[in-house]
Amino acid sequence: MPIIESVPNFSEGRRPEVIAALVEAIQAPGVLLLDHSSDADHNRTVITVAGEPNAVLEGVFRAVAVAAQKINLFEHRGEHPRIGATDVAPLVPIEGITLEECVGLAHRLGRRIGEELRLPVYLYAAAATRPERKRLPDIRRGEFEGLLETIHLPERTPDYGPAEVGPAGAVVVGARPFLVAYNIYLQTPDVEIARNIAKAIRESSGGLPAVQAKGFLVEGQAQVSMNLLDVEVTPLHVVFTEVQRLAEAQGVAIDRSELIGLAPERVIRAAAAHFLKLGGADNVHTVEGAMRR
Amino acid sequence: MPIIESVPNFSEGRRPEVIAALVEAIQAPGVLLLDHSSDADHNRTVITVAGEPNAVLEGVFRAVAVAAQKINLFEHRGEHPRIGATDVAPLVPIEGITLEECVGLAHRLGRRIGEELRLPVYLYAAAATRPERKRLPDIRRGEFEGLLETIHLPERTPDYGPAEVGPAGAVVVGARPFLVAYNIYLQTPDVEIARNIAKAIRESSGGLPAVQAKGFLVEGQAQVSMNLLDVEVTPLHVVFTEVQRLAEAQGVAIDRSELIGLAPERVIRAAAAHFLKLGGADNVHTVEGAMRR
Repeated sequence: MPIIESVPNFSEGRRPEVIAALVEAIQAPGVLLLDHSSDADHNRTVITVAGEPNAVLEGVFRAVAVAAQKINLFEHRGEHPRIGATDVAPLVPIEGITLEECVGLAHRLGRRIGEELRLPVYLYAAAATRPERKRLPDIRRGEFEGLLETIHLPERTPDYGPAEVGPAGAVVVGARPFLVAYNIYLQTPDVEIARNIAKAIRESSGGLPAVQAKGFLVEGQAQVSMNLLDVEVTPLHVVFTEVQRLAEAQGVAIDRSELIGLAPERVIRAAAAHFLKLGGADNVHTVEGAMRR
Repeated sequence: MPIIESVPNFSEGRRPEVIAALVEAIQAPGVLLLDHSSDADHNRTVITVAGEPNAVLEGVFRAVAVAAQKINLFEHRGEHPRIGATDVAPLVPIEGITLEECVGLAHRLGRRIGEELRLPVYLYAAAATRPERKRLPDIRRGEFEGLLETIHLPERTPDYGPAEVGPAGAVVVGARPFLVAYNIYLQTPDVEIARNIAKAIRESSGGLPAVQAKGFLVEGQAQVSMNLLDVEVTPLHVVFTEVQRLAEAQGVAIDRSELIGLAPERVIRAAAAHFLKLGGADNVHTVEGAMRR
């Protein structure tokens, strides 16, 4: 059974009854609620769900419909940039499904939102139909208020739905790989070492592809804090081994590492397979995996 | 949701209709059939199932009942030693359940088989009630034919059920840790090196606890073949690291390793956690694990 995750962001983080309605709506049959958190300053709620693709698409669609009914962007204020009541809804492959298949699902979800809810929909990330729509900040530039003025311009034509903006704004739908938040703590209080390693490994300064990294001092210990944007491109064990190499070159050992939040089992299997020389995650067969199939 | 596995062995490996009836009976609601294999020479069938404890207990009980109806030990011939129609039914903790809790389940299953099917039941392994019943070969000594003569002796008194032997013989029920079959291939055709490493690491010659090991030559490559009887005691990564150390001391590298069959995800998480310094399997949280809960 293929499993996807979705992490829709809604522009409401203050009214408990609206948040509760979103959390309830998204739980269509077969949808598992993994997490939800609301931030009053950002005035925003992030819900994490997983399940079989059809179930997740149905749940997200229902929540998008509730958000469009109950959230009015003309009245919305918050620190976080936003373009719609459902600001963004990424679809993420977890198991037994490819990113390319999630692109197909994003089109299906986007088309349904456009046709049935009459909302403008933009596709982003791996589902983008134009290069300038790959990055979410580019689509969101000018936010809801700017979109009111610009939606009739050719470069703003939605991928699905009408070129008209109502109180629910637009919805950005897409497909992207799973993001792994990963920290490595060094046996040193010298934050400069963590900053240098972070600079050496992050993609933006010529390091490892699909890796974002910063150095911090956390409770007196140097920490390399990372987002791994695509662990198929740069897996966990490559990051660990490279940080270890760079740290040891400066006479510093790795103290420990930590995974923030949930990771797909495949990522863990790949790391174990690497260190045990098992020849890849596909050679690791688990009882639980067999039960899911 | 706790998950256990059971791997009952039945004394029938030839009559397809009996094998089919066992495979059908064991699949009570909630029971997942992971594997089954029959051997005509051994005249024996091994079925692997997993699921929530109550479901697995119900399925195994149903299969034991079918075996008792359809298998007559007075007529059974095969190479493998056996004491009953259902020769042995181990319960194995997979996730969210301890070995001690599986001991409790073994008592429940044993009592039900004894009371409802009127079969003599012996508890073994972690569920044994006497030290001399820990090991399966000790309980099975003399096999079915011997038991006919000895069941009235005090040392043969069943743990549950009557001290009487009918055509279905006795059932041995127990709880044991998951067994991981694990092979490591060395970059050498010298089988003596594999044999020396096997001797150094197996428990029986003073090596690592809960490890059985032998050296083989497989397609021109030296292989250390192991059964890890309790990966809580000696985990996969300890075995790998120790074999690597011993091989390198003789100037030989590890080529690759392989897991035979299924392993619980916990074992894989523990290995990844060790090499990534995550501080133990409990610090690894997966999307799939969250979905199961």
